Amino acid sequence: MDYLRFYQQRPVLITGGMGFIGSNLAHRLVALGAKVTLIDNLLPDTGWHPANIADLQGRVRLIIGDIGHPETARDAVMGQAVIFNLAGSISHIDSMRHPLMDLEANARAHLVLLEAVRQYNPQAVVIYAGTRQQYGTPQYLPVDEAHRNLPNDINGINKLAGEWYHRVYHRAYDIKTCSLRLTNTYGPRQLIRHPRQGFIGWFVRQAILGETITVFGDGQQRRDLVEITDVVDAFLRAGANPQAWGHVFNLGSEPATLLEIAELCVAIAGCGRVTLAPWPEERARIDIGDVYCSYQRARETLGWEPKTPLRPGLQRMIDFYQRHAEVYLTPAMEIGFGSGLGLRSSGRR
Amino acid sequence: MDYLRFYQQRPVLITGGMGFIGSNLAHRLVALGAKVTLIDNLLPDTGWHPANIADLQGRVRLIIGDIGHPETARDAVMGQAVIFNLAGSISHIDSMRHPLMDLEANARAHLVLLEAVRQYNPQAVVIYAGTRQQYGTPQYLPVDEAHRNLPNDINGINKLAGEWYHRVYHRAYDIKTCSLRLTNTYGPRQLIRHPRQGFIGWFVRQAILGETITVFGDGQQRRDLVEITDVVDAFLRAGANPQAWGHVFNLGSEPATLLEIAELCVAIAGCGRVTLAPWPEERARIDIGDVYCSYQRARETLGWEPKTPLRPGLQRMIDFYQRHAEVYLTPAMEIGFGSGLGLRSSGRR
Repeated sequence: MDYLRFYQQRPVLITGGMGFIGSNLAHRLVALGAKVTLIDNLLPDTGWHPANIADLQGRVRLIIGDIGHPETARDAVMGQAVIFNLAGSISHIDSMRHPLMDLEANARAHLVLLEAVRQYNPQAVVIYAGTRQQYGTPQYLPVDEAHRNLPNDINGINKLAGEWYHRVYHRAYDIKTCSLRLTNTYGPRQLIRHPRQGFIGWFVRQAILGETITVFGDGQQRRDLVEITDVVDAFLRAGANPQAWGHVFNLGSEPATLLEIAELCVAIAGCGRVTLAPWPEERARIDIGDVYCSYQRARETLGWEPKTPLRPGLQRMIDFYQRHAEVYLTPAMEIGFGSGLGLRSSGRR
Repeated sequence: MDYLRFYQQRPVLITGGMGFIGSNLAHRLVALGAKVTLIDNLLPDTGWHPANIADLQGRVRLIIGDIGHPETARDAVMGQAVIFNLAGSISHIDSMRHPLMDLEANARAHLVLLEAVRQYNPQAVVIYAGTRQQYGTPQYLPVDEAHRNLPNDINGINKLAGEWYHRVYHRAYDIKTCSLRLTNTYGPRQLIRHPRQGFIGWFVRQAILGETITVFGDGQQRRDLVEITDVVDAFLRAGANPQAWGHVFNLGSEPATLLEIAELCVAIAGCGRVTLAPWPEERARIDIGDVYCSYQRARETLGWEPKTPLRPGLQRMIDFYQRHAEVYLTPAMEIGFGSGLGLRSSGRR
């Protein structure tokens, strides 16, 4: 069956469903006719935002709750065919400042979710959002899935543990798990309020506000960016493909330098400027130099490849934030639940 | 300075101090003139036993508490020169049954301890007890430190995370951490009450009770056993050697088959017998075949090697349990705090 038609009428859970990737995946799944449930714990400073799902009101079921809570996890997973497990925190800086919160969100909560799946819905497919941060400083480029996992921050360790729980639950209990190791994802609905969740949101924010984008070092560090539409496509392919179970897959794309990316943001936005600055010590110590990933395995097994080149991808993102800057610059917590932005359970199912 | 004299008058903390390795290390450190503090949370079914430290009463400071509790960790680490971080759970079976308890003991608690060290005693040396279980099924033999970490149970994942926290705290904050990856440790004061903490304690128990030792499969799986005296020596060397900081070291020894080990137990004990049986499914799925480790790095950097051959080592262990069988077959919780077995803080310091 075509992997897109697979989702028609299919009950699907997205953890971290109000976040950047979760909400984009939700929009796509609703369009494909899936029965979508979102769960989000509204953890401060992570990517959730009411605006991310405002236009899905009445078309999805929304659970405000934490997958680290056993009864909540049980209620969320029961009856689901596919679970896109995107909940977590991705800030390397925050993980060093608040390591226990990072552990809770990225390791412990996933163990609770997997226990719920094992006990109450062992037939479910679970697709986890891993990260190339697990690899740490690349030993060679491009980084493939055989690369050693040598995380150099707390976030990388906890994300690694979270992924390994999925692998052990596959191995020991035949749970249909898979991990996609994401590299730098970018696009509409990404967090741009603070600079601690990757550089792209911050570059875009500064460009559209006409501010100065500071690039550390000489700006020649290379990264591979994958546009959100392509990342969503990878999750849809993995969730529908039994050959994915028990495996991990890198996403990736052609690398570009940070300086090139910054200058492209400024050029597309038509305002802002770029400057170079020395590395702050806190960041230098956990920086990992050039990093980009081989996605050959995802191409061979899932038929996936990135289709959105950098310029049109950034154009789409900057267009979005030029239209919606105000709401996305407002802290999510300040918007509140009475604003009509979709923060109510739909009761559809 | 000689590494043994290093400990004279030195303030030293042992987490998991009432356990198998912790209590043996405590005896050695007291004999070397160190100022020893033990902390133990008395977690059920782990290796702690009042009898393990009964003869140390008045010669060590004992904290009954959990290093996962921030204030307890702070009080325990302050003023210590060396912290031997042995707290944790090592049961692979238990980790699959109670994964969240395993996470708490083997990952989260160590993050709390390391945060306490970073905040209140950043000069301390921290030696962590890692495990060859982190490697999972060996890709080659003997397993060296460059072998990929491919844990195949929850315990291996959480122990791996615990070790990585130590490595990141060294890298990011210059905390003087080191991990010794232990293989099968055996000797006096080892848990023999249940079979879920490795096979040696169970083999010895069955031999001295005149029971039948069941070996799974054909009994030809090889393991390397390291006698507790040698393991204690490795910790003492690592704690006193700045070249250890930031590194991991395997312990290891000449491998023997499980059948040979079982038959040796019966021969030394002078009773019991050995039988072969098919693998139970729960164990077969997480078994890792032959495994033994290269300790070349520990030999080169720490000057360590195992000195106790298997037969005299097992002889010493079996002698110990033939003298002390009754107390070690009694669940630790049932002995109680009023029995004079040392469960009171000495107030020496």
